[in-house]
Amino acid sequence: MQEPKRAIVLLSGGLDSAVTGAIARHENYALYALTLDYGQRHAAEIAASRRVASWLGVREHVVQQFDLRVFGGSALTAEIEVPKRNSASEIGPEPPITYVPARNTIFLSFALAFAEVRGARDIFLGVNAVDFSGYPDCRPEFIEAFERLANLATKLGTTSQRFSIRAPLLHSSKADIVREGARLGLNFGLTHSCYDPPEEGLSCGRCDSCILRREGFRAAGIHDPLRYVS
Amino acid sequence: MQEPKRAIVLLSGGLDSAVTGAIARHENYALYALTLDYGQRHAAEIAASRRVASWLGVREHVVQQFDLRVFGGSALTAEIEVPKRNSASEIGPEPPITYVPARNTIFLSFALAFAEVRGARDIFLGVNAVDFSGYPDCRPEFIEAFERLANLATKLGTTSQRFSIRAPLLHSSKADIVREGARLGLNFGLTHSCYDPPEEGLSCGRCDSCILRREGFRAAGIHDPLRYVS
Repeated sequence: MQEPKRAIVLLSGGLDSAVTGAIARHENYALYALTLDYGQRHAAEIAASRRVASWLGVREHVVQQFDLRVFGGSALTAEIEVPKRNSASEIGPEPPITYVPARNTIFLSFALAFAEVRGARDIFLGVNAVDFSGYPDCRPEFIEAFERLANLATKLGTTSQRFSIRAPLLHSSKADIVREGARLGLNFGLTHSCYDPPEEGLSCGRCDSCILRREGFRAAGIHDPLRYVS
Repeated sequence: MQEPKRAIVLLSGGLDSAVTGAIARHENYALYALTLDYGQRHAAEIAASRRVASWLGVREHVVQQFDLRVFGGSALTAEIEVPKRNSASEIGPEPPITYVPARNTIFLSFALAFAEVRGARDIFLGVNAVDFSGYPDCRPEFIEAFERLANLATKLGTTSQRFSIRAPLLHSSKADIVREGARLGLNFGLTHSCYDPPEEGLSCGRCDSCILRREGFRAAGIHDPLRYVS
């Protein structure tokens, strides 16, 4: 039997990365999961990433720790309040204060190191350019530029082989993502989305991440098993 | 008085990054130093980076910790012996086993985060494409690709302002680098280059990094104050 192709999947513990992992598994990749524990306010993500990695049956799950709080500059890594809203229509086109400077660049860089060492050519990333249009590092041109960089930055890039950055949800709406997760049998209760969880096991319901998630489930007509406080 | 322009300087504690920092200081930047403590075999680098940062008079020095040993795949981060040689002529054009997968991509990603938060537009990096020709992430095309990425990855990249990746030693020989350091008054004794230090304060003299450093000093006709065991 042929050894399956290997892929890195960046797992945040959130909905989008869980569905992305399910897509990669459905394509029969042997999965190597990578989670970045960067001092984010919502550390509940890490526990969720372990549940999702286990559900995906990954071969290896690395949780890489570092501390973006020393740089600050984001509501997710500094003492800045996470904005609360009533609906997605209140989210503007500007990068929001929950944007973490260069975060996806850092994430992909670690994924690239992991990929090169484990012999994976494909890196799956759950970014989405539709709902989070304000994040510069969720744009298609960012993904393309990173793929180009990856093939110059590495030993593999000096051969005829190529790394590929796979962002299968890049152009999906949140409702599409929920439907795709349901189709692939994902237990949505394993995931965590809230930026500002009031306590363990609960979600605030009013940060941008909760709002987009809930509107996605509503539009898809699928039940979200998470518990929201408002 | 006008506030000086800010720059990030990646300091490894080695010769090239120290000279790069001296160049940035000479250009009157207010410096923000960043050192990456990634579980490297030669942790003496970190102490050296603190000495160099202090000599440069940087405004802030962040030592960001993470662990590339969980990925492995390099003589600097895994239980793989560091090759020893007798002269630079024995160093081939292939990426050596001391290549750390995606290291410079990871370093620049953190520098980009730091730059964006501190309002710096210039990132100084001590890479060199001449002596270490085998490292894919020391090539000019890698630097250009990262600069392009930086301007797509960030909030700044959505404005008319631009990040610039400055690698002033990219095309310098090691002897040129030594001469430039001397011209700028660098105390070379603050720096550390050895990949495999036999004990604190000593250098092996036969790893690629020691060999290139010593040949550079010899060619420049300048005394290297470090103590070598062979």
